[in-house]
Amino acid sequence: MENYLFDFIEQYMPLTEEEKKAIVDLDIIRSFKKGTILVKEGDIIKGGYLVIKGCLRSYCIVDGEEKTTGFYTETVPIVPVFGADDSRAAHFVSCVEDSIVTVGNPDMEKETMEKFPRFEKLCLIISEQLLEKNLASFADFKNSTPEQRYLDLLKNRPGLLQRVPQHQIASYLGIKPQSLSRIRKRVAQNGTV
Amino acid sequence: MENYLFDFIEQYMPLTEEEKKAIVDLDIIRSFKKGTILVKEGDIIKGGYLVIKGCLRSYCIVDGEEKTTGFYTETVPIVPVFGADDSRAAHFVSCVEDSIVTVGNPDMEKETMEKFPRFEKLCLIISEQLLEKNLASFADFKNSTPEQRYLDLLKNRPGLLQRVPQHQIASYLGIKPQSLSRIRKRVAQNGTV
Repeated sequence: MENYLFDFIEQYMPLTEEEKKAIVDLDIIRSFKKGTILVKEGDIIKGGYLVIKGCLRSYCIVDGEEKTTGFYTETVPIVPVFGADDSRAAHFVSCVEDSIVTVGNPDMEKETMEKFPRFEKLCLIISEQLLEKNLASFADFKNSTPEQRYLDLLKNRPGLLQRVPQHQIASYLGIKPQSLSRIRKRVAQNGTV
Repeated sequence: MENYLFDFIEQYMPLTEEEKKAIVDLDIIRSFKKGTILVKEGDIIKGGYLVIKGCLRSYCIVDGEEKTTGFYTETVPIVPVFGADDSRAAHFVSCVEDSIVTVGNPDMEKETMEKFPRFEKLCLIISEQLLEKNLASFADFKNSTPEQRYLDLLKNRPGLLQRVPQHQIASYLGIKPQSLSRIRKRVAQNGTV
């Protein structure tokens, strides 16, 4: 399983054998069953996750209703969303499928970075990349219709629609399940995809 | 003017005299007149900005209409939004007021980080903080009504409403100017703020 993690990191920088060994020694890879809740709203946040296999979902509960804020599939990192007090989770994170993920914690990260300062550079690159992606997604969301958002999802993450329930996709797109059904029908009829 | 920049950095880490001198030597502080366009959609992105004084705005043009994606006031950093080809700007950035900003570039950043590796840590902290804020803002935007968004803006950035035109505030909130007028009237009548 470590190989998936090495592949992910080596997109950004090659790893030495010593660094690979240090990563294995961290012992940060965990398996979770579908339905497991990894983070609850209000939990003290210990660190982020990187999905090696499977699918996680982040959501919050608004007026008793789950609102999906993100889906995280293979090699997508999850950064926790903090609430107003800045140390506790504002969202839930659960497993949509049986999943294998890396589980970090701040002490371990600090120690590793002191030993391998190159990892700080790596984290900076990944963090900046996530920030850029998120800024672009936010702007796209604001400036597009629900139908455009659905078409973008079909284009950019086609596999996701087969992996997660439709009502979760709907809330992720910021619409009701009935609206998603109508959009899907219209898109199928128009043959735009 | 450098003092504003030092204050910003020293929220995260104290600076040595040598580091302060190095920052001054970088000569990255520039003044721009209200209305100046710093970045055009399609420009090759050279780096980010940090507002020392004034107000910048990012926006894109959808069907001939400007859609505001962000306002950046004192000590708020701007990370450029990249388009699909990953090197060119997807958004415009302009000055809403006469503004003083730091102007970075990748070569300079690389050189500074090699000389002062502590700045890498600083950039990582700032980048992670921006990412967390952006994730929270995106989720809040998705899960709130236009009226809630307006109330949040009033609460979190009350000064902004006096500094920028109402139609820009409206597009920032993802609504039409008429809807913003209605919301403002309703909020004023209900005395919720």
